[in-house]
Amino acid sequence: MPADGIPEGEDMTVHPMWLPDDLADREGAGLRGRSIAITGEGDLFETVRRDAAALGLRLVDVAGADGADVVVEPADAADALGPESFALTRGTDRTVVRYGGASGALYGWFQLLREAVQAQPHRGLGTTRHEPAHELRMLDHWDNVAVHPVMGQVERGYAGGSIFYDDGRLRDDLTRVERYARLLASIGINRVAINNVNVHAREARLLTDDLPGVARLAGVFRGWGIRTHLSVSFAAPLTLGGLGTSDPLDEAVQEWWAETADRVYATIPDFGGFVVKADSEGQPGPFAYGRSHAEGANMLARALAPRGGMVHWRAFVYNHRQDWRDRSTDRARAAYDHFAPLDGHFDDNVVVQVKYGPLDFQAREPVSPVIPAMRATRVALELQVTQEYTGHQLHAVYLAPQWREILDFRPFGDDGPRLAEIVRGGIVAVSNVGDDEFWTGHPLAQANLYAYGRLAWDPSLDPAAILDEWIALTFGMDERVRDGIHSILDESWRTYESYTAPLGVGFMVSPQGHYGPAVDGYEYSPWGTYHFADRDGIGVDRTVATGTGYAGQYPSPWRESYESLETVPDELLLFFHHVPYTHRLHSGSTVVQHIYDTHFAGVEAVEKLPAVWAALEGRMDAALHARVSDRLAEQRRSAVEWRDQINTYFWRKSGIPDERGRTIY
Amino acid sequence: MPADGIPEGEDMTVHPMWLPDDLADREGAGLRGRSIAITGEGDLFETVRRDAAALGLRLVDVAGADGADVVVEPADAADALGPESFALTRGTDRTVVRYGGASGALYGWFQLLREAVQAQPHRGLGTTRHEPAHELRMLDHWDNVAVHPVMGQVERGYAGGSIFYDDGRLRDDLTRVERYARLLASIGINRVAINNVNVHAREARLLTDDLPGVARLAGVFRGWGIRTHLSVSFAAPLTLGGLGTSDPLDEAVQEWWAETADRVYATIPDFGGFVVKADSEGQPGPFAYGRSHAEGANMLARALAPRGGMVHWRAFVYNHRQDWRDRSTDRARAAYDHFAPLDGHFDDNVVVQVKYGPLDFQAREPVSPVIPAMRATRVALELQVTQEYTGHQLHAVYLAPQWREILDFRPFGDDGPRLAEIVRGGIVAVSNVGDDEFWTGHPLAQANLYAYGRLAWDPSLDPAAILDEWIALTFGMDERVRDGIHSILDESWRTYESYTAPLGVGFMVSPQGHYGPAVDGYEYSPWGTYHFADRDGIGVDRTVATGTGYAGQYPSPWRESYESLETVPDELLLFFHHVPYTHRLHSGSTVVQHIYDTHFAGVEAVEKLPAVWAALEGRMDAALHARVSDRLAEQRRSAVEWRDQINTYFWRKSGIPDERGRTIY
Repeated sequence: MPADGIPEGEDMTVHPMWLPDDLADREGAGLRGRSIAITGEGDLFETVRRDAAALGLRLVDVAGADGADVVVEPADAADALGPESFALTRGTDRTVVRYGGASGALYGWFQLLREAVQAQPHRGLGTTRHEPAHELRMLDHWDNVAVHPVMGQVERGYAGGSIFYDDGRLRDDLTRVERYARLLASIGINRVAINNVNVHAREARLLTDDLPGVARLAGVFRGWGIRTHLSVSFAAPLTLGGLGTSDPLDEAVQEWWAETADRVYATIPDFGGFVVKADSEGQPGPFAYGRSHAEGANMLARALAPRGGMVHWRAFVYNHRQDWRDRSTDRARAAYDHFAPLDGHFDDNVVVQVKYGPLDFQAREPVSPVIPAMRATRVALELQVTQEYTGHQLHAVYLAPQWREILDFRPFGDDGPRLAEIVRGGIVAVSNVGDDEFWTGHPLAQANLYAYGRLAWDPSLDPAAILDEWIALTFGMDERVRDGIHSILDESWRTYESYTAPLGVGFMVSPQGHYGPAVDGYEYSPWGTYHFADRDGIGVDRTVATGTGYAGQYPSPWRESYESLETVPDELLLFFHHVPYTHRLHSGSTVVQHIYDTHFAGVEAVEKLPAVWAALEGRMDAALHARVSDRLAEQRRSAVEWRDQINTYFWRKSGIPDERGRTIY
Repeated sequence: MPADGIPEGEDMTVHPMWLPDDLADREGAGLRGRSIAITGEGDLFETVRRDAAALGLRLVDVAGADGADVVVEPADAADALGPESFALTRGTDRTVVRYGGASGALYGWFQLLREAVQAQPHRGLGTTRHEPAHELRMLDHWDNVAVHPVMGQVERGYAGGSIFYDDGRLRDDLTRVERYARLLASIGINRVAINNVNVHAREARLLTDDLPGVARLAGVFRGWGIRTHLSVSFAAPLTLGGLGTSDPLDEAVQEWWAETADRVYATIPDFGGFVVKADSEGQPGPFAYGRSHAEGANMLARALAPRGGMVHWRAFVYNHRQDWRDRSTDRARAAYDHFAPLDGHFDDNVVVQVKYGPLDFQAREPVSPVIPAMRATRVALELQVTQEYTGHQLHAVYLAPQWREILDFRPFGDDGPRLAEIVRGGIVAVSNVGDDEFWTGHPLAQANLYAYGRLAWDPSLDPAAILDEWIALTFGMDERVRDGIHSILDESWRTYESYTAPLGVGFMVSPQGHYGPAVDGYEYSPWGTYHFADRDGIGVDRTVATGTGYAGQYPSPWRESYESLETVPDELLLFFHHVPYTHRLHSGSTVVQHIYDTHFAGVEAVEKLPAVWAALEGRMDAALHARVSDRLAEQRRSAVEWRDQINTYFWRKSGIPDERGRTIY
């Protein structure tokens, strides 16, 4: 990093996301020109000092702290602040950040910045405590080192190539990574896994030959309080180690992993650990040796434990060679069936990483029952910032409202804790950035990354308030910009849901790439994601009484609530029940009329967006404005295609006309 | 070619197809050891002499021809034999081939070989005249020079890589091409186009930089009486020539093509000409300049005419960005609408190349109405030997019965000529070979290539008799082998039809690659191939009275026959009419019961094949036997998948149960 704290290099035209290089053009940027005194020794403190200086603050000696406008200093033991926490005290003349540890100073600095740019303190004078809800706040990159023939450089990436790799090798110039690390630190992310969970041959070598390169990446992240993790292949002892097995109970295998971990730690002393997708969609795993996933995960965990490393073990295990004719198998059941019996059998440094729903990041799924089932295990909630099933960053979809609903879900009913409170293994999400000029393809998708970090830190934050922060940081305090973006994004997730697969049934996307409609695209596939639509009705009977029994994987009251047509929420009706098209929802509409109505309404909502956006022209960077305009046009085209294919499909199948006589093909 | 006439080289393990290197292991190979006297000077005669010697005949001087067992000599003018024709006279002691020209001698030699291996003369003593029904008998290769990211080395190739190219360049070793040329000559093929009709940037350079390599290929083919053609891009004056246009009426464009043709002829004196896919599926064409396809084709033809070259101009022109919601557009109409008005406007050295059906090589389509509509034009019939829509050479499908039906079609009714008689531009087909050990992936698919050549020469040949020839040449005279292969192949096309898309509706294949079922795979696509199935019925109304009017493109009596439900043939019902599932076919069955019955029956037929084949083990090359066994297993798996998806789709949609109560999912 250059001396002024702002990364420079090949791509200075890259958009700064929510951290402009200069505060001069941000209204109310009250920090500029102020004096700041920072107490503390070490790299993270140097990072904060450099950042503050680069943004125009005046560093003063701690000895002169009494006169400084901003003081950053260690908290008292009595404050009982954790190493990442801080307290922010605003007085009339001075602002004081008291930190629990160096990371707390870093996060406190960015909180100051956030509030300054919003012309706050919006919480007024006094002290606020800031403590992360989760110790582990992680981003997973599904980046490949070598361009994959089908998946490309970034699996499920919709923002260009990888910022870490360039066709076959680690990048020499890490300028972009430095910017990225700063952005992540500003939203509290403290862990990054730098390669795809599907570990191909080239990527497996990150663990061995490429360690010097990984160490360079880790060094950049370390400067911003972020630890680096690697996705590894469970078969590595076989494929890299030359052993005849990767059986977790084999001593040579255990030794190989221990030695491998030692080599990693010799190069990267604060290495975070391994991410493992085992026995999943063709990846190797302990099942090949008749071992349990606990045995597999613990073996790896023991190799890492002496140095403080973690294993993130994904629970995304199911039969992906299912026969569509087999109604007895239910993919939704799989993670619970595999993992719930293992609760309590995982070592302390194992995190079982569970996708938020039982299928795969659909716009609407019930919250996974694995999380409440494994209270004796450190379970992480896995979200997807990259918009695999939510429009590929071509559609404007702000995901924070969905995530907030998930985090707020109370698995044991109204009197029980929220999901966010029982997730003891932190929050993980798949990143949405690439080497695109705007990082995320759709510039408004930056808000998802921002919101993810903020919610991982504090799951009680209001999605609209988070959006306010992101807008102020990114565009300044222009009220028309703020209102315009809110009007595009606030309801965008529900709008997307309304014009795509209805009522929680999911998976009506094109099997090629997961963009655009294909109602029967997965209906006869081996992937276990079916809707069973016939001329009379649609939906998957997952009840205990007559279906696959999936509803019974929930604790009360949800097992009863989902089981019954009387109580199942409308938005999940078809996930849990097969019903006639004439079935009447709680909303009063029939299923088929609901499908028609929501699809027409969804398109109507999307059709309003271009004018909203057009009105903001001239109020922001022209290239960014143009990019969003292009994507809104594509979203409109695609939404119409969704509407027409879905409506036509159900009209042809049901023969029930639209009550309002609108055009169905 | 080495001196002994049999090509040698890197791949001597390659299967010889129907021309074994040695006749010793063929029963009744009565030619071996016989003496042969060949009159004639020139390369083709040398080819025949070398081939005869290599197969164990004794060449004797023409001066000693009186004592020779076989005499090959020029015919008298009174015989009126064309340059490719010959008469074969079998006496008790001697066989005489009298040829019209050098090619006639070559084809006469292979006829001798064919009959000898079948322990014939099966026509007994006396004289038979052999004259090709079509002057132009061509194979098109959809081979790419550079591996295409989606289509690979051979577009729609199911037999490995190209025998001409190896990832980015022409092969140095043309041993395999030499074998191939000999095989083609043996079945009378006299024209080969060596590159994909979709001309990508790399392939465009075959016309310029690569001419020396093309000349090497052409030299190999020339030795076997075959002229070489190139697929060219209509935009070549722009992309290769640096002109600002490729307008066919532009003088600079005309000059560029004339000079280009001159350069080609300076390198390849017998160059065959250009194949052009213009204004089709994204390829450039004259429409961009407001010119007709006659203007485009004639411009190219005039560049080639001075040297005897041809233009093969494909009629596969349609709107491939159709909106599925638009019922007014019918892709089936497109070729006729574009080309019929141009009848009589094409130069004599233009061949308009028409796919056999109006869509795209489906297992069942009506014969294209373009052919009878263009009696003043040299129209070629285009077939597809490569099994794009008929099982990818994983399914055993013998296509000769389909081709024979097409060739026998009488467009003007029972008193009019057969299609084969009005096709004045010859027969063209897409080849099915690759660098696979057995050339064609499925060894039994060799029979399709063999039958194609034989039918192009003589469209009145019986498919079963052609199969007898191929079996005898390939496997010898083992009756059990012959009966087994007949029992697998004779009905294989109708069997394939029975378990795939029903009643001529077509296109229920997976859009990715065209293998396996996807009933709605093309239903909402831009490709214009829809079935319009709803809960009440299925099919495309192409009548004049209420539909797209396509039926009216046929002359009487077919326009009336196809128009009416009373007279439309069952097998084309859904191509021409949208009918209820309860509509009763001429066969007495309802549409939906027909679908169920044929799909169960198709699988039952396929399930019998492995045992038939297993009984032939030990009677042929073990590797070939094993390869076919593997493919029959895949065919069975795939046929079951077809049956179950199709039947389930129509059961779910119609709600009408199978009369016989069989399992539908």
